[in-house]
Amino acid sequence: MEKTSCLHFCFISCLVLFIIVGSWYRSSISSLPGYSLQTQKPIYHSAETPHHPLDPLTVKEINRVRTILSSYEPFSFTFPTIHTILLDEPDKVQVLKWRKGDPFPPRKAQVLALLNGQSHVLNVDLDSIRVTSHVINPRSGYPMLSMDDISAASEAPFSNAEFNKSIAARGVSSSELICLPPSAGWFGPNEEGKRVVKVLCFSNQGTPNFYMRPIEGLVMTVDLDTMEVLKFSDTGRDIPIPKSTDTDYWYTAQKKEPQMEPLNPISIEQPKGPSFRVEDGHIVKWANWVFHLKADHRAGLVISRVMVRDSENGELRDVMYKGFASEFFVPYMDLDESWYFKSYMDAGEFGLGMSALPLVPLNDCPRHSYYMDGIFATPDGNPFVHPNMICLFERYAGDISWRHSEGLLTDFQIREARPKVTLVARMAASVGNYDYIFDWEFQTDGLINVKVGLSGMLMVKGSPYHQAPNQDAMSGPLISENLIGVVHDHFVTFHLDMDIDGANNSFVNVNLVKERSLPEESPRKSYLKAKRKIAKTEKDAQIKLKLYDPSEFHMINPSKRSRLGNPTGYKIVPGGTAASLLDHSDPPQLRSAFTNSQIWVTPYNKSEQWAGGLLTYQSRGDDTLAVWSERDRSIENKDIVLWYTLGFHHIPCQEDFPVMPTVTSGFELKPVNFFESNPILRAAPAFEKDLPVCRPSASP
Amino acid sequence: MEKTSCLHFCFISCLVLFIIVGSWYRSSISSLPGYSLQTQKPIYHSAETPHHPLDPLTVKEINRVRTILSSYEPFSFTFPTIHTILLDEPDKVQVLKWRKGDPFPPRKAQVLALLNGQSHVLNVDLDSIRVTSHVINPRSGYPMLSMDDISAASEAPFSNAEFNKSIAARGVSSSELICLPPSAGWFGPNEEGKRVVKVLCFSNQGTPNFYMRPIEGLVMTVDLDTMEVLKFSDTGRDIPIPKSTDTDYWYTAQKKEPQMEPLNPISIEQPKGPSFRVEDGHIVKWANWVFHLKADHRAGLVISRVMVRDSENGELRDVMYKGFASEFFVPYMDLDESWYFKSYMDAGEFGLGMSALPLVPLNDCPRHSYYMDGIFATPDGNPFVHPNMICLFERYAGDISWRHSEGLLTDFQIREARPKVTLVARMAASVGNYDYIFDWEFQTDGLINVKVGLSGMLMVKGSPYHQAPNQDAMSGPLISENLIGVVHDHFVTFHLDMDIDGANNSFVNVNLVKERSLPEESPRKSYLKAKRKIAKTEKDAQIKLKLYDPSEFHMINPSKRSRLGNPTGYKIVPGGTAASLLDHSDPPQLRSAFTNSQIWVTPYNKSEQWAGGLLTYQSRGDDTLAVWSERDRSIENKDIVLWYTLGFHHIPCQEDFPVMPTVTSGFELKPVNFFESNPILRAAPAFEKDLPVCRPSASP
Repeated sequence: MEKTSCLHFCFISCLVLFIIVGSWYRSSISSLPGYSLQTQKPIYHSAETPHHPLDPLTVKEINRVRTILSSYEPFSFTFPTIHTILLDEPDKVQVLKWRKGDPFPPRKAQVLALLNGQSHVLNVDLDSIRVTSHVINPRSGYPMLSMDDISAASEAPFSNAEFNKSIAARGVSSSELICLPPSAGWFGPNEEGKRVVKVLCFSNQGTPNFYMRPIEGLVMTVDLDTMEVLKFSDTGRDIPIPKSTDTDYWYTAQKKEPQMEPLNPISIEQPKGPSFRVEDGHIVKWANWVFHLKADHRAGLVISRVMVRDSENGELRDVMYKGFASEFFVPYMDLDESWYFKSYMDAGEFGLGMSALPLVPLNDCPRHSYYMDGIFATPDGNPFVHPNMICLFERYAGDISWRHSEGLLTDFQIREARPKVTLVARMAASVGNYDYIFDWEFQTDGLINVKVGLSGMLMVKGSPYHQAPNQDAMSGPLISENLIGVVHDHFVTFHLDMDIDGANNSFVNVNLVKERSLPEESPRKSYLKAKRKIAKTEKDAQIKLKLYDPSEFHMINPSKRSRLGNPTGYKIVPGGTAASLLDHSDPPQLRSAFTNSQIWVTPYNKSEQWAGGLLTYQSRGDDTLAVWSERDRSIENKDIVLWYTLGFHHIPCQEDFPVMPTVTSGFELKPVNFFESNPILRAAPAFEKDLPVCRPSASP
Repeated sequence: MEKTSCLHFCFISCLVLFIIVGSWYRSSISSLPGYSLQTQKPIYHSAETPHHPLDPLTVKEINRVRTILSSYEPFSFTFPTIHTILLDEPDKVQVLKWRKGDPFPPRKAQVLALLNGQSHVLNVDLDSIRVTSHVINPRSGYPMLSMDDISAASEAPFSNAEFNKSIAARGVSSSELICLPPSAGWFGPNEEGKRVVKVLCFSNQGTPNFYMRPIEGLVMTVDLDTMEVLKFSDTGRDIPIPKSTDTDYWYTAQKKEPQMEPLNPISIEQPKGPSFRVEDGHIVKWANWVFHLKADHRAGLVISRVMVRDSENGELRDVMYKGFASEFFVPYMDLDESWYFKSYMDAGEFGLGMSALPLVPLNDCPRHSYYMDGIFATPDGNPFVHPNMICLFERYAGDISWRHSEGLLTDFQIREARPKVTLVARMAASVGNYDYIFDWEFQTDGLINVKVGLSGMLMVKGSPYHQAPNQDAMSGPLISENLIGVVHDHFVTFHLDMDIDGANNSFVNVNLVKERSLPEESPRKSYLKAKRKIAKTEKDAQIKLKLYDPSEFHMINPSKRSRLGNPTGYKIVPGGTAASLLDHSDPPQLRSAFTNSQIWVTPYNKSEQWAGGLLTYQSRGDDTLAVWSERDRSIENKDIVLWYTLGFHHIPCQEDFPVMPTVTSGFELKPVNFFESNPILRAAPAFEKDLPVCRPSASP
């Protein structure tokens, strides 16, 4: 979430570095024994062409966009700063119609740029080589921070006299400082009309984990376009900088072994190679699944055109047109001058894809993983490769797909069990201190399991205390000497454009209602009854989950029925979650009003992709999912989109210091009367004869 | 849940069969390449002696109990039917004091028996060779059904004239019938004073999956002790028996392959063997964990004396004295004469351990698993071996323990990630149609993940319909021709005797409360504040979970504080769950009133182990956790037990036919200020050089 990744340096050197690192990773991958040739990918992207209407813009296409913009008349004097160049996806109808070999729908790009403090939204047609639309400041808010914004803002303090004076008074040398520019949020008219950022600093003396060494209370509000310091706040001079002791998490820095028995090597092995294929760079085929997978600057990872093969008749059936993390809201619970604004919207303000660094083979993803790169644009409009941003792997975790044993009551001695093997697409974003792991896991029984893991570093607050006399007076628990782990929430809002057997679907609330029996009717006094209510309009589908008024939530195709007359459908199955409790009128909640419900359903609208609005930075909340939904459009038997918000309350603890063990939660998309019967009834068990023969590595 | 497992036959042959099957499994296990010698176990149990005060009764000890009872004067004329012979665990104080090499506390057994329709609870001292206490009918309720009860009841219909007439009228031959005796529940005084069971029948013509072929509406209420048919109900003659088509789930019976790409072999491999050891038959040691693991007749799997090693100072610290599934409540939502009573309490009525059949290697548990047997007693008091009832394995699922990447903002190029390897103890109970998979998963970061998976067969209802004209009028959806999947719930109540750094603990509700800021105080209008409330008495700890009034629930040791002053603790982290919505006065809910809250905390009391009472069968609910908790005893800084109920609402669907893909949910026990910092900070990453070298099996 907060802070951010990347960059004070020239992008050319960075690109070179990435290519080197990327090649190294790849060579290590392709040298794995048994690694299938079919899952290898081209090492260089410069010659690539798109193979599917949803393929992201290629290196060549991004270059062409830059060329088009360079000769675009309004930019002839000054080239704008590019914040995003993304594929402007063709209309859904065109994509659904398209078949391999067909001519492509026109390739288009959406560009978010900034010029003279104004937001520019442009659409560029790559075929006709022209800008087809251009809107300035369509609503409140700016594009996400560019790498240059972040880089420049992080340097801003060093030329500020007040700042340098304060640092000197604290006995801190500027050479040990690392400053980060978290977003400023939006808190009323005072800071409107200009792009502002908050700059906070940390000491990296003695540790790479500077996050644990905040210079508390020192915060500068900086105008991102002039680099002027608008406000200087310095309240924490009596708060010591926490020591660096035990903050370093690098493996090479660990002086001793942990006091536990070492683990023998363990690995998921598939000597015949993984069972999936990646065709044309983005089409993933595995078992009964086919989908399009790509890296995205903002969402991180986008899954599209998800289809599952009916295991009985072989038909390839639509499940989901597009699924991705649309926004990530992280409000902290501290009113101090240097904390109140911390209410990040990580996708729209920083970009989950922009913040994704290369996955670490064997540790972020198991052996035999396939890695996919992201191709984005630099602030000057050049293509930029994020190597190994997504991994794809087959998982066997020792779980059971289904089982049944029969005892001795009958003549049957039944011991039937099937191992569960799944396919995982993973991306990890390092948005400053926090690391977010996104998993999309596909099961052969048709279930899609979506998980979000939180790791990385806490956003911590300096404190005068070594021992807390009254922790209730603080905004979170003391987690180390002079360090408070401030209470905060995480909300991830997923855009789930379900297309169950086609685009037109309905949303059904299958409510479990307690009924009472009549006297004499039964020895039972009560029972539950499932009552189906089809949502007619958007407001019918603004759902807050209730443990004591439970429902299942189905997306169904009312025109497609099973042989028994049940509509085909998928249900969303929430796991552990949390709700936002902030006042609806509180500025952060207003901007993230899409967390006011856990579930929403909207009619499909290509422009409604981002739950916090297209332009999120300093937005006022005038373009959120909550605003769209208030229009209360009809959603019955229409092309509709399901939105689900997964939440975490986080009260930190000592175990989160200096780096947090991963916390995971998620939800499932599960077939419900979609198949005529259990689609993995005929799946084969594992047999000893098929399993690999392994020996310990030759290394000593 | 319902129906049950096992038996019309003599136990000797059964024992022989089990030994043969068990040996076969074992020989297949021990022949695995690299399988470590240290995890092998003795093939024969007859010579075993206990090594730990909590070790279950051995074959020899069960024989000794039978001998003691045989010469016990009140049983000199008639030997009672034995329903349970279990270790009567020594007092906790004695167990905690005991060290390896110390003399054992006296070995004792608890016996639940039945004689002349009365429940007998006996305690037997194996050292002094005598019955030390003997109580008859201490409360309402009977011991769980014995294998003989089940066997006899399942035969009862065949000698009943009315039954045979009805069957003949339906055109069903008795040779195709399989009858099962689900428990009758308790519905007021009419059926008190005698043990009753309901007997239902199915046709197995054309399929081993007779559960999908119910003889609907035919139900006999049978006196278990006289085998008299008390009531004969026959309402479903117009309902056809569903066809056997597509019901067979045996792999060998599948005529065609599913239409999906076949998967290449995949396996969790550890050529240096697993990292865990099982010492003295029951003590499991792995990484930083030590615990006692045993099979239990009623609970299935019991984890005791759980200790985790502090990774910094090496100290072995108490976490949990005992954890197990105490009861499993499964109410169905149908008022019909042949359905209303279906409100099973599977642990107390049938026994989760009694219902556990041998796990299937490679399919129920991965390669390199270690298998543990259960030793229980037959109705005549003889020892009886349940082979391969528990498996223990190390899991690597491609997950991430913790990670952090740092971008280019600083000079650091950080790519730190650690793979997550865990240890799983698993048991699967097949309580008639349903299969319940219990996983206790231990993580090196101190977290314990408890999961329950549901698979096996639905309890289905015959229906006249092929196509449902109005499904809302039925008690569940049509899931196949003439088959309704009746709506039902599953509630698993866990007994979690947490001992955080010692026995005396407190339960803290850390409530996240929304606070409003004062005008002018902050640009923010609201924030959350964590407020800690220590539960003084039991009623303070009767917790219903609330999404919009959230809390963390901590078990802490108020006398043991971290260096920062935080009490050491663990929290319980619910995942997806469901609450029972039945009327509190409804008989099934009265008996399972322990599901009225999701969380309870009681003072430790050796006699309060079973949430539904010691004698559950036909109990009236006078000995449940809810009754104990109403005493409102003090629980602050005391030896206390945490109870958590995991729930599932189940609205069946076509995919659940003819066998259900596993549905899983669970909860976590997670350290909170228990460690001074992240205990796996110093954990090593995986290195390519350490991983195995594998080749495809030699088989064609």
